[in-house]
Amino acid sequence: MAANEFSETHRVVYYEADDTGQLTLAMLINLFVLVSEDQNDALGLSTAFVQSHGVGWVVTQYHLHIDELPRTGAQVTIKTRATAYNRYFAYREYWLLDDAGQVLAYGEGIWVTMSYATRKITTIPAEVMAPYHSEEQTRLPRLPRPDHFDEAVNQTLKPYTVRYFDIDGNGHVNNAHYFDWMLDVLPATFLRAHHPTDVKIRFENEVQYGHQVTSELSQAAALTTQHMIKVGDLTAVKATIQWDNR
Amino acid sequence: MAANEFSETHRVVYYEADDTGQLTLAMLINLFVLVSEDQNDALGLSTAFVQSHGVGWVVTQYHLHIDELPRTGAQVTIKTRATAYNRYFAYREYWLLDDAGQVLAYGEGIWVTMSYATRKITTIPAEVMAPYHSEEQTRLPRLPRPDHFDEAVNQTLKPYTVRYFDIDGNGHVNNAHYFDWMLDVLPATFLRAHHPTDVKIRFENEVQYGHQVTSELSQAAALTTQHMIKVGDLTAVKATIQWDNR
Repeated sequence: MAANEFSETHRVVYYEADDTGQLTLAMLINLFVLVSEDQNDALGLSTAFVQSHGVGWVVTQYHLHIDELPRTGAQVTIKTRATAYNRYFAYREYWLLDDAGQVLAYGEGIWVTMSYATRKITTIPAEVMAPYHSEEQTRLPRLPRPDHFDEAVNQTLKPYTVRYFDIDGNGHVNNAHYFDWMLDVLPATFLRAHHPTDVKIRFENEVQYGHQVTSELSQAAALTTQHMIKVGDLTAVKATIQWDNR
Repeated sequence: MAANEFSETHRVVYYEADDTGQLTLAMLINLFVLVSEDQNDALGLSTAFVQSHGVGWVVTQYHLHIDELPRTGAQVTIKTRATAYNRYFAYREYWLLDDAGQVLAYGEGIWVTMSYATRKITTIPAEVMAPYHSEEQTRLPRLPRPDHFDEAVNQTLKPYTVRYFDIDGNGHVNNAHYFDWMLDVLPATFLRAHHPTDVKIRFENEVQYGHQVTSELSQAAALTTQHMIKVGDLTAVKATIQWDNR
Protein backbone atom coordinates (compact mmCIF):
# COMPACT_ATOMS: atom_id res chain seq x y z
CA MET A 1 0.00 0.00 0.00
CA ALA A 2 1.48 3.34 -1.02
CA ALA A 3 2.32 5.83 1.73
CA ASN A 4 -0.68 7.98 0.87
CA GLU A 5 -3.15 5.08 1.07
CA PHE A 6 -5.13 3.98 4.09
CA SER A 7 -7.69 1.23 4.60
CA GLU A 8 -9.79 -0.38 7.31
CA THR A 9 -12.47 -3.03 7.58
CA HIS A 10 -16.08 -2.36 8.44
CA ARG A 11 -19.15 -4.50 9.08
CA VAL A 12 -22.33 -3.11 7.51
CA VAL A 13 -24.96 -2.97 10.28
CA TYR A 14 -28.73 -2.78 10.00
CA TYR A 15 -29.00 0.93 10.73
CA GLU A 16 -26.71 1.69 7.79
CA ALA A 17 -29.04 -0.10 5.37
CA ASP A 18 -32.43 0.65 3.82
CA ASP A 19 -35.59 -1.41 4.27
CA THR A 20 -34.31 -4.00 1.76
CA GLY A 21 -31.08 -4.45 3.77
CA GLN A 22 -28.85 -2.64 1.25
CA LEU A 23 -26.30 0.01 2.32
CA THR A 24 -27.70 3.48 1.63
CA LEU A 25 -25.95 6.03 -0.58
CA ALA A 26 -25.75 8.37 2.42
CA MET A 27 -23.91 5.69 4.39
CA LEU A 28 -21.53 5.00 1.48
CA ILE A 29 -20.49 8.67 1.70
CA ASN A 30 -20.24 8.40 5.49
CA LEU A 31 -17.91 5.38 5.10
CA PHE A 32 -15.71 7.22 2.59
CA VAL A 33 -15.45 10.21 4.92
CA LEU A 34 -14.81 7.87 7.88
CA VAL A 35 -11.80 6.18 6.27
CA SER A 36 -10.31 9.52 5.24
CA GLU A 37 -10.80 10.93 8.77
CA ASP A 38 -9.13 7.82 10.18
CA GLN A 39 -6.24 8.35 7.75
CA ASN A 40 -6.01 11.96 8.92
CA ASP A 41 -5.88 10.87 12.56
CA ALA A 42 -3.28 8.19 11.80
CA LEU A 43 -1.07 10.87 10.19
CA GLY A 44 -1.51 13.31 13.07
CA LEU A 45 -3.77 15.50 10.94
CA SER A 46 -6.56 15.87 13.46
CA THR A 47 -9.31 18.43 12.92
CA ALA A 48 -7.73 20.51 15.71
CA PHE A 49 -4.36 20.46 13.92
CA VAL A 50 -5.94 21.52 10.62
CA GLN A 51 -7.94 24.24 12.39
CA SER A 52 -4.75 25.50 14.03
CA HIS A 53 -3.72 26.58 10.51
CA GLY A 54 -6.84 28.73 10.25
CA VAL A 55 -8.54 26.47 7.72
CA GLY A 56 -10.99 23.63 7.36
CA TRP A 57 -11.38 21.06 4.57
CA VAL A 58 -14.51 21.39 2.43
CA VAL A 59 -15.56 18.98 -0.32
CA THR A 60 -16.75 20.59 -3.56
CA GLN A 61 -17.49 17.58 -5.79
CA TYR A 62 -17.79 13.80 -5.74
CA HIS A 63 -18.03 11.34 -8.57
CA LEU A 64 -19.08 7.84 -7.58
CA HIS A 65 -19.23 4.65 -9.58
CA ILE A 66 -21.15 1.84 -7.92
CA ASP A 67 -21.21 -1.78 -9.04
CA GLU A 68 -23.07 -3.12 -6.04
CA LEU A 69 -24.08 -1.92 -2.59
CA PRO A 70 -23.30 -4.40 0.20
CA ARG A 71 -25.98 -5.78 2.51
CA THR A 72 -26.39 -5.82 6.29
CA GLY A 73 -23.80 -8.12 7.85
CA ALA A 74 -21.31 -7.78 4.98
CA GLN A 75 -17.65 -7.40 5.92
CA VAL A 76 -16.20 -4.72 3.67
CA THR A 77 -12.93 -2.83 3.33
CA ILE A 78 -12.95 0.93 2.87
CA LYS A 79 -9.83 2.43 1.34
CA THR A 80 -8.75 5.94 0.46
CA ARG A 81 -5.81 7.69 -1.15
CA ALA A 82 -4.90 11.37 -1.06
CA THR A 83 -3.76 11.03 -4.67
CA ALA A 84 -2.76 14.48 -5.87
CA TYR A 85 -3.02 18.16 -5.13
CA ASN A 86 -2.12 21.61 -6.39
CA ARG A 87 -2.18 25.08 -4.90
CA TYR A 88 -5.95 25.13 -4.30
CA PHE A 89 -7.33 21.66 -4.83
CA ALA A 90 -6.78 18.18 -3.39
CA TYR A 91 -7.90 15.12 -5.33
CA ARG A 92 -8.85 12.10 -3.20
CA GLU A 93 -9.94 8.61 -4.21
CA TYR A 94 -12.04 6.06 -2.33
CA TRP A 95 -12.82 2.36 -2.70
CA LEU A 96 -15.32 0.01 -1.14
CA LEU A 97 -14.19 -3.62 -1.46
CA ASP A 98 -15.96 -6.85 -0.57
CA ASP A 99 -14.32 -9.54 1.58
CA ALA A 100 -12.75 -11.09 -1.54
CA GLY A 101 -11.12 -7.77 -2.48
CA GLN A 102 -13.50 -7.03 -5.39
CA VAL A 103 -14.36 -3.36 -5.89
CA LEU A 104 -18.01 -2.70 -5.04
CA ALA A 105 -17.80 1.08 -5.37
CA TYR A 106 -15.24 3.70 -6.35
CA GLY A 107 -15.30 7.40 -5.61
CA GLU A 108 -13.27 10.51 -6.34
CA GLY A 109 -13.58 13.84 -4.58
CA ILE A 110 -12.22 17.36 -4.91
CA TRP A 111 -11.46 19.11 -1.63
CA VAL A 112 -10.44 22.68 -0.85
CA THR A 113 -9.34 24.48 2.29
CA MET A 114 -11.54 27.32 3.46
CA SER A 115 -10.14 30.11 5.61
CA TYR A 116 -12.01 30.66 8.89
CA ALA A 117 -11.09 34.34 8.74
CA THR A 118 -12.33 35.15 5.24
CA ARG A 119 -14.79 32.21 4.73
CA LYS A 120 -13.15 31.90 1.30
CA ILE A 121 -11.07 29.25 -0.44
CA THR A 122 -7.40 29.65 0.41
CA THR A 123 -4.14 28.05 -0.73
CA ILE A 124 -3.71 24.68 0.94
CA PRO A 125 -1.24 25.08 3.85
CA ALA A 126 1.84 22.89 3.25
CA GLU A 127 1.68 21.50 6.81
CA VAL A 128 -1.78 19.98 6.37
CA MET A 129 -0.86 18.41 3.00
CA ALA A 130 2.72 17.14 3.40
CA PRO A 131 2.02 14.07 5.59
CA TYR A 132 -0.02 12.39 2.82
CA HIS A 133 2.99 12.25 0.45
CA SER A 134 0.57 13.12 -2.34
CA GLU A 135 1.76 14.04 -5.79
CA GLU A 136 1.85 17.76 -6.56
CA GLN A 137 0.34 18.33 -9.99
CA THR A 138 -0.46 21.46 -11.96
CA ARG A 139 -3.57 19.91 -13.49
CA LEU A 140 -5.73 17.62 -11.43
CA PRO A 141 -8.30 15.22 -12.89
CA ARG A 142 -11.56 17.07 -13.55
CA LEU A 143 -14.65 15.40 -12.18
CA PRO A 144 -17.72 15.36 -14.43
CA ARG A 145 -20.30 17.98 -13.47
CA PRO A 146 -23.94 17.15 -12.87
CA ASP A 147 -26.09 17.56 -15.99
CA HIS A 148 -28.07 20.73 -16.58
CA PHE A 149 -31.15 20.54 -14.36
CA ASP A 150 -34.11 20.49 -16.69
CA GLU A 151 -36.92 22.31 -14.90
CA ALA A 152 -39.38 21.34 -17.63
CA VAL A 153 -39.22 17.56 -17.17
CA ASN A 154 -41.36 15.67 -14.61
CA GLN A 155 -40.40 17.94 -11.78
CA THR A 156 -41.32 17.07 -8.21
CA LEU A 157 -40.30 18.80 -5.01
CA LYS A 158 -40.28 18.17 -1.26
CA PRO A 159 -39.42 20.58 1.56
CA TYR A 160 -37.15 19.65 4.47
CA THR A 161 -36.14 21.55 7.56
CA VAL A 162 -32.52 21.07 8.68
CA ARG A 163 -32.62 19.27 12.04
CA TYR A 164 -30.20 19.45 14.93
CA PHE A 165 -29.01 15.89 14.25
CA ASP A 166 -28.26 16.72 10.59
CA ILE A 167 -25.38 19.00 11.52
CA ASP A 168 -21.80 18.07 12.28
CA GLY A 169 -18.96 19.51 14.33
CA ASN A 170 -18.49 22.35 11.82
CA GLY A 171 -22.04 23.58 12.33
CA HIS A 172 -22.94 22.60 8.77
CA VAL A 173 -25.04 19.78 7.40
CA ASN A 174 -23.21 16.46 7.21
CA ASN A 175 -22.97 15.94 3.41
CA ALA A 176 -24.47 12.47 3.67
CA HIS A 177 -27.85 13.97 4.58
CA TYR A 178 -28.13 15.62 1.16
CA PHE A 179 -28.53 12.12 -0.25
CA ASP A 180 -31.44 11.36 2.07
CA TRP A 181 -33.19 14.55 0.91
CA MET A 182 -32.43 13.92 -2.76
CA LEU A 183 -33.52 10.28 -2.79
CA ASP A 184 -36.56 10.66 -0.51
CA VAL A 185 -38.28 12.60 -3.32
CA LEU A 186 -38.23 9.42 -5.43
CA PRO A 187 -41.04 6.88 -4.81
CA ALA A 188 -40.20 3.94 -2.49
CA THR A 189 -41.18 1.57 -5.31
CA PHE A 190 -38.46 3.10 -7.50
CA LEU A 191 -35.84 3.00 -4.72
CA ARG A 192 -36.57 -0.65 -3.93
CA ALA A 193 -36.35 -1.72 -7.58
CA HIS A 194 -33.23 0.25 -8.57
CA HIS A 195 -29.77 0.99 -7.32
CA PRO A 196 -27.54 3.95 -8.16
CA THR A 197 -24.62 3.18 -10.48
CA ASP A 198 -23.15 6.62 -11.15
CA VAL A 199 -23.40 9.77 -9.04
CA LYS A 200 -22.12 13.22 -9.97
CA ILE A 201 -22.60 15.73 -7.18
CA ARG A 202 -21.45 19.30 -6.71
CA PHE A 203 -21.68 21.28 -3.47
CA GLU A 204 -22.17 24.97 -4.19
CA ASN A 205 -23.38 26.61 -1.00
CA GLU A 206 -23.55 25.58 2.63
CA VAL A 207 -26.74 24.61 4.40
CA GLN A 208 -27.10 25.35 8.09
CA TYR A 209 -29.21 24.37 11.11
CA GLY A 210 -32.78 25.58 10.86
CA HIS A 211 -32.64 26.31 7.13
CA GLN A 212 -35.65 25.30 5.09
CA VAL A 213 -34.45 23.47 2.01
CA THR A 214 -36.29 22.16 -1.02
CA SER A 215 -35.23 18.97 -2.73
CA GLU A 216 -36.12 19.19 -6.41
CA LEU A 217 -36.17 16.20 -8.74
CA SER A 218 -36.30 16.13 -12.52
CA GLN A 219 -36.43 12.69 -14.08
CA ALA A 220 -34.86 13.22 -17.50
CA ALA A 221 -35.09 9.54 -18.45
CA ALA A 222 -36.31 6.33 -16.79
CA LEU A 223 -32.88 5.65 -15.28
CA THR A 224 -31.50 9.21 -14.95
CA THR A 225 -32.49 11.56 -12.15
CA GLN A 226 -31.37 15.15 -11.71
CA HIS A 227 -31.43 16.71 -8.27
CA MET A 228 -31.17 20.17 -6.82
CA ILE A 229 -31.18 21.18 -3.16
CA LYS A 230 -32.02 24.84 -2.70
CA VAL A 231 -32.22 27.26 0.21
CA GLY A 232 -34.69 29.81 -1.11
CA ASP A 233 -33.33 30.75 -4.55
CA LEU A 234 -29.77 29.72 -3.70
CA THR A 235 -28.60 26.37 -5.05
CA ALA A 236 -26.81 24.37 -2.36
CA VAL A 237 -26.27 21.09 -4.21
CA LYS A 238 -26.67 19.77 -7.74
CA ALA A 239 -26.49 16.10 -8.67
CA THR A 240 -27.16 13.64 -11.47
CA ILE A 241 -27.70 9.98 -10.64
CA GLN A 242 -27.76 7.03 -13.04
CA TRP A 243 -29.73 3.99 -11.89
CA ASP A 244 -29.96 0.37 -12.88
CA ASN A 245 -32.49 -2.35 -12.08
CA ARG A 246 -31.59 -4.37 -9.01
CA MET B 1 -21.22 -14.76 30.82
CA ALA B 2 -24.51 -16.59 31.36
CA ALA B 3 -25.96 -18.55 28.45
CA ASN B 4 -28.57 -15.87 27.81
CA GLU B 5 -26.03 -13.04 27.63
CA PHE B 6 -24.26 -11.78 24.54
CA SER B 7 -21.79 -8.96 24.01
CA GLU B 8 -19.66 -7.37 21.30
CA THR B 9 -17.34 -4.41 20.94
CA HIS B 10 -18.09 -1.32 18.88
CA ARG B 11 -16.19 1.80 17.92
CA VAL B 12 -18.30 4.97 18.04
CA VAL B 13 -17.87 6.71 14.67
CA TYR B 14 -18.52 10.31 13.73
CA TYR B 15 -21.84 9.70 12.00
CA GLU B 16 -23.21 8.14 15.20
CA ALA B 17 -22.49 11.33 17.18
CA ASP B 18 -24.03 14.79 17.39
CA ASP B 19 -22.26 18.05 16.55
CA THR B 20 -20.44 17.97 19.91
CA GLY B 21 -19.06 14.47 19.18
CA GLN B 22 -21.31 12.68 21.69
CA LEU B 23 -23.22 9.48 20.80
CA THR B 24 -26.87 10.35 20.09
CA LEU B 25 -29.78 8.80 21.98
CA ALA B 26 -31.08 7.39 18.68
CA MET B 27 -27.75 5.64 18.15
CA LEU B 28 -27.72 4.27 21.71
CA ILE B 29 -31.03 2.54 20.87
CA ASN B 30 -29.58 1.36 17.54
CA LEU B 31 -26.62 -0.17 19.39
CA PHE B 32 -28.89 -1.96 21.89
CA VAL B 33 -30.98 -3.36 19.05
CA LEU B 34 -27.81 -4.30 17.13
CA VAL B 35 -26.39 -6.42 19.96
CA SER B 36 -29.71 -8.20 20.49
CA GLU B 37 -30.04 -8.92 16.74
CA ASP B 38 -26.48 -10.27 16.76
CA GLN B 39 -27.41 -12.49 19.72
CA ASN B 40 -30.48 -13.69 17.78
CA ASP B 41 -28.33 -14.55 14.76
CA ALA B 42 -25.75 -16.33 16.95
CA LEU B 43 -28.55 -18.50 18.41
CA GLY B 44 -30.03 -19.29 14.98
CA LEU B 45 -32.99 -16.99 15.70
CA SER B 46 -32.86 -15.09 12.43
CA THR B 47 -35.73 -12.82 11.42
CA ALA B 48 -36.71 -15.44 8.82
CA PHE B 49 -36.85 -18.16 11.51
CA VAL B 50 -39.01 -15.98 13.77
CA GLN B 51 -41.28 -15.07 10.83
CA SER B 52 -41.66 -18.76 9.97
CA HIS B 53 -43.63 -19.01 13.23
CA GLY B 54 -46.06 -16.39 11.98
CA VAL B 55 -44.87 -13.68 14.37
CA GLY B 56 -42.53 -10.72 14.66
CA TRP B 57 -40.98 -9.16 17.77
CA VAL B 58 -42.25 -5.69 18.70
CA VAL B 59 -40.90 -3.52 21.53
CA THR B 60 -43.51 -1.87 23.73
CA GLN B 61 -41.40 -0.02 26.34
CA TYR B 62 -37.86 0.96 27.18
CA HIS B 63 -36.41 2.39 30.36
CA LEU B 64 -32.88 3.79 30.03
CA HIS B 65 -30.48 5.03 32.63
CA ILE B 66 -27.51 6.95 31.25
CA ASP B 67 -24.43 7.99 33.20
CA GLU B 68 -22.46 9.21 30.23
CA LEU B 69 -22.66 9.04 26.45
CA PRO B 70 -19.37 8.04 24.77
CA ARG B 71 -17.66 10.22 22.21
CA THR B 72 -16.52 9.65 18.63
CA GLY B 73 -13.60 7.21 18.59
CA ALA B 74 -14.53 5.53 21.88
CA GLN B 75 -14.22 1.74 22.03
CA VAL B 76 -17.30 0.46 23.83
CA THR B 77 -18.85 -2.90 24.62
CA ILE B 78 -22.55 -3.48 24.07
CA LYS B 79 -24.12 -6.31 26.02
CA THR B 80 -27.59 -7.76 26.26
CA ARG B 81 -29.43 -10.48 28.17
CA ALA B 82 -32.81 -12.04 27.42
CA THR B 83 -33.46 -12.11 31.15
CA ALA B 84 -36.99 -13.40 31.69
CA TYR B 85 -40.31 -14.01 29.98
CA ASN B 86 -43.85 -15.18 30.52
CA ARG B 87 -46.70 -16.15 28.23
CA TYR B 88 -46.94 -12.75 26.52
CA PHE B 89 -43.95 -10.64 27.49
CA ALA B 90 -40.17 -10.91 27.24
CA TYR B 91 -37.94 -8.76 29.46
CA ARG B 92 -34.55 -7.86 28.00
CA GLU B 93 -31.64 -5.91 29.52
CA TYR B 94 -28.89 -3.95 27.80
CA TRP B 95 -25.58 -2.42 28.86
CA LEU B 96 -23.14 0.01 27.28
CA LEU B 97 -19.68 -0.31 28.85
CA ASP B 98 -16.54 1.73 28.34
CA ASP B 99 -13.16 0.13 27.58
CA ALA B 100 -12.49 -0.25 31.33
CA GLY B 101 -15.74 -2.18 31.80
CA GLN B 102 -17.57 0.69 33.54
CA VAL B 103 -21.27 0.95 32.80
CA LEU B 104 -22.04 4.08 30.76
CA ALA B 105 -25.70 3.24 30.14
CA TYR B 106 -28.19 0.57 31.13
CA GLY B 107 -31.49 -0.25 29.48
CA GLU B 108 -34.45 -2.56 29.96
CA GLY B 109 -37.11 -3.35 27.39
CA ILE B 110 -40.39 -5.21 27.18
CA TRP B 111 -40.99 -7.11 23.95
CA VAL B 112 -44.04 -8.95 22.64
CA THR B 113 -44.68 -11.14 19.62
CA MET B 114 -47.27 -9.90 17.15
CA SER B 115 -49.12 -12.30 14.88
CA TYR B 116 -48.85 -11.49 11.17
CA ALA B 117 -52.29 -13.01 10.62
CA THR B 118 -54.22 -11.07 13.28
CA ARG B 119 -51.86 -8.03 13.76
CA LYS B 120 -52.41 -8.66 17.48
CA ILE B 121 -50.21 -9.67 20.37
CA THR B 122 -49.96 -13.46 20.61
CA THR B 123 -48.46 -15.96 23.05
CA ILE B 124 -44.71 -16.16 22.53
CA PRO B 125 -43.96 -19.33 20.50
CA ALA B 126 -41.74 -21.68 22.54
CA GLU B 127 -39.37 -22.19 19.58
CA VAL B 128 -38.40 -18.52 19.34
CA MET B 129 -37.85 -18.21 23.12
CA ALA B 130 -36.14 -21.49 24.16
CA PRO B 131 -32.64 -20.82 22.72
CA TYR B 132 -32.11 -17.84 25.09
CA HIS B 133 -32.38 -20.05 28.21
CA SER B 134 -34.30 -17.20 29.82
CA GLU B 135 -36.10 -17.61 33.09
CA GLU B 136 -39.85 -18.19 32.86
CA GLN B 137 -41.58 -15.95 35.42
CA THR B 138 -45.23 -15.27 36.15
CA ARG B 139 -44.52 -11.64 37.02
CA LEU B 140 -41.95 -9.70 35.08
CA PRO B 141 -40.39 -6.43 36.25
CA ARG B 142 -42.67 -3.52 35.38
CA LEU B 143 -40.99 -0.64 33.61
CA PRO B 144 -41.95 2.86 34.75
CA ARG B 145 -44.40 4.57 32.41
CA PRO B 146 -43.82 8.03 30.98
CA ASP B 147 -45.37 10.80 33.08
CA HIS B 148 -48.75 12.22 32.20
CA PHE B 149 -48.22 14.60 29.27
CA ASP B 150 -49.21 18.01 30.52
CA GLU B 151 -50.69 19.87 27.54
CA ALA B 152 -50.86 23.10 29.54
CA VAL B 153 -47.14 23.54 30.16
CA ASN B 154 -44.78 25.24 27.68
CA GLN B 155 -45.96 23.19 24.79
CA THR B 156 -44.16 23.30 21.46
CA LEU B 157 -44.71 21.18 18.40
CA LYS B 158 -42.99 20.29 15.12
CA PRO B 159 -44.33 18.30 12.17
CA TYR B 160 -42.32 15.55 10.42
CA THR B 161 -43.09 13.42 7.40
CA VAL B 162 -41.90 9.81 7.60
CA ARG B 163 -39.20 9.36 4.96
CA TYR B 164 -38.23 6.29 2.99
CA PHE B 165 -34.96 5.99 4.89
CA ASP B 166 -36.78 6.09 8.26
CA ILE B 167 -38.34 2.68 7.71
CA ASP B 168 -36.87 -0.75 8.34
CA GLY B 169 -37.32 -4.23 6.92
CA ASN B 170 -40.72 -4.56 8.63
CA GLY B 171 -42.11 -1.56 6.78
CA HIS B 172 -42.33 0.41 10.03
CA VAL B 173 -40.30 3.27 11.38
CA ASN B 174 -37.02 2.21 12.98
CA ASN B 175 -37.64 3.07 16.66
CA ALA B 176 -34.45 5.08 16.87
CA HIS B 177 -35.94 7.77 14.62
CA TYR B 178 -38.56 8.64 17.25
CA PHE B 179 -35.71 10.03 19.33
CA ASP B 180 -34.60 12.32 16.49
CA TRP B 181 -38.15 13.69 16.21
CA MET B 182 -38.58 14.04 19.98
CA LEU B 183 -35.26 15.76 20.61
CA ASP B 184 -35.25 17.98 17.51
CA VAL B 185 -38.11 20.00 19.06
CA LEU B 186 -35.71 21.08 21.84
CA PRO B 187 -33.42 24.04 21.08
CA ALA B 188 -29.85 23.20 19.95
CA THR B 189 -28.56 25.30 22.84
CA PHE B 190 -30.39 23.01 25.30
CA LEU B 191 -29.19 19.83 23.57
CA ARG B 192 -25.56 20.99 23.56
CA ALA B 193 -25.62 21.94 27.26
CA HIS B 194 -27.45 18.86 28.60
CA HIS B 195 -27.42 15.11 28.31
CA PRO B 196 -30.25 12.66 28.99
CA THR B 197 -29.93 10.65 32.21
CA ASP B 198 -33.23 8.79 32.38
CA VAL B 199 -35.62 7.90 29.55
CA LYS B 200 -39.02 6.28 29.89
CA ILE B 201 -40.62 5.54 26.54
CA ARG B 202 -43.72 3.64 25.54
CA PHE B 203 -44.64 2.66 21.97
CA GLU B 204 -48.41 2.62 21.53
CA ASN B 205 -49.13 2.62 17.81
CA GLU B 206 -47.09 2.02 14.70
CA VAL B 207 -45.96 4.77 12.36
CA GLN B 208 -45.57 4.01 8.68
CA TYR B 209 -43.96 5.41 5.53
CA GLY B 210 -45.56 8.63 4.35
CA HIS B 211 -47.36 9.33 7.63
CA GLN B 212 -47.35 12.91 8.85
CA VAL B 213 -46.39 12.91 12.52
CA THR B 214 -46.28 15.69 15.07
CA SER B 215 -43.66 15.74 17.80
CA GLU B 216 -45.07 17.51 20.84
CA LEU B 217 -42.95 18.73 23.72
CA SER B 218 -44.03 19.84 27.18
CA GLN B 219 -41.25 21.00 29.46
CA ALA B 220 -42.61 20.28 32.93
CA ALA B 221 -39.44 21.45 34.70
CA ALA B 222 -36.04 22.78 33.64
CA LEU B 223 -34.58 19.26 33.46
CA THR B 224 -37.70 17.21 32.65
CA THR B 225 -39.18 16.98 29.18
CA GLN B 226 -42.33 15.13 28.18
CA HIS B 227 -42.78 14.00 24.61
CA MET B 228 -45.60 12.73 22.46
CA ILE B 229 -45.46 11.59 18.84
CA LYS B 230 -48.87 11.57 17.20
CA VAL B 231 -50.31 10.57 13.85
CA GLY B 232 -53.39 12.77 13.66
CA ASP B 233 -55.16 12.20 16.98
CA LEU B 234 -53.55 8.80 17.54
CA THR B 235 -50.66 8.67 20.00
CA ALA B 236 -47.77 6.65 18.58
CA VAL B 237 -45.18 7.24 21.30
CA LYS B 238 -45.03 8.78 24.78
CA ALA B 239 -41.81 9.54 26.63
CA THR B 240 -40.39 11.36 29.63
CA ILE B 241 -36.73 12.35 29.66
CA GLN B 242 -34.68 13.57 32.61
CA TRP B 243 -31.67 15.71 31.75
CA ASP B 244 -28.55 16.85 33.50
CA ASN B 245 -26.00 19.54 32.72
CA ARG B 246 -23.06 18.28 30.69
